[in-house]
Amino acid sequence: MDYSVTPVGYVASSRGEVVDDGWDEEMCAIELVDPFGPEALVGLEAFSHVEVIYLFDRVDPTAVHRGARRPRGNPDWPEVGIFAQRGKDRPNRLGLSTCELLSVERRRLVLRGLDAVDGTPVLDVKPWFEEFGPRGPVRQPDWSRELMADYF
Amino acid sequence: MDYSVTPVGYVASSRGEVVDDGWDEEMCAIELVDPFGPEALVGLEAFSHVEVIYLFDRVDPTAVHRGARRPRGNPDWPEVGIFAQRGKDRPNRLGLSTCELLSVERRRLVLRGLDAVDGTPVLDVKPWFEEFGPRGPVRQPDWSRELMADYF
Repeated sequence: MDYSVTPVGYVASSRGEVVDDGWDEEMCAIELVDPFGPEALVGLEAFSHVEVIYLFDRVDPTAVHRGARRPRGNPDWPEVGIFAQRGKDRPNRLGLSTCELLSVERRRLVLRGLDAVDGTPVLDVKPWFEEFGPRGPVRQPDWSRELMADYF
Repeated sequence: MDYSVTPVGYVASSRGEVVDDGWDEEMCAIELVDPFGPEALVGLEAFSHVEVIYLFDRVDPTAVHRGARRPRGNPDWPEVGIFAQRGKDRPNRLGLSTCELLSVERRRLVLRGLDAVDGTPVLDVKPWFEEFGPRGPVRQPDWSRELMADYF
């Protein structure tokens, strides 16, 4: 069974092309669209960060990976399954980022560090609750730390 | 423009009914469905936590909120916009949780703390990268901490 999702807004960013790294240098915002008005964002400024779920709409659905591959095709990194990496060519093409919220202006959110290009459809915005973060010690493989070295 | 999403798996949980609190006490897992095989999860066990995007399919789409309301209807808490809270009656009905990964068994992930009832459709699983967590000091309002007191 399939489900339908509808953009609640779109990304406005100074980055128009898909590039892997350096996201923190970009200006970025989310503009809500109708029927959403400023009341949908009331109280959000009390939070320092938001989680944004968006759609990698530039990814061709026929190019989606379902098995294992090396992240970014890097021969120094192991083959890992699509659900063991965060690459964009993934089933359902959902992106997810935690961003600093700089300001809320009517139905516009100004953010830092949203890794989505200009025009990207946004499916949801959630406030960051510390309690929803990872509980217990965090462990991750070396390749993921190397991949992130220049990301933000 | 709408987009279509397809479940990549389903939640198996000892909780069959929607109840707000006490999620850590439940047994929970995600079972991938075809065409996904064990190769989609290769290397995931090197991560301690995963982020799960799922669909609140028990929520009637006509009951979704688009404006502001008090979380859980609690008169002690302020009216906040739907994007300033994490309630399930939200546009696109997307849920998002960070869970401890206990084990990977072929195409089954055993988790702790997934706040989704038995049979919930899963749309994506991403490994938790510490670098994707909030950067800079975190701030959140008192009501959100009170709401979370008994959640997990």
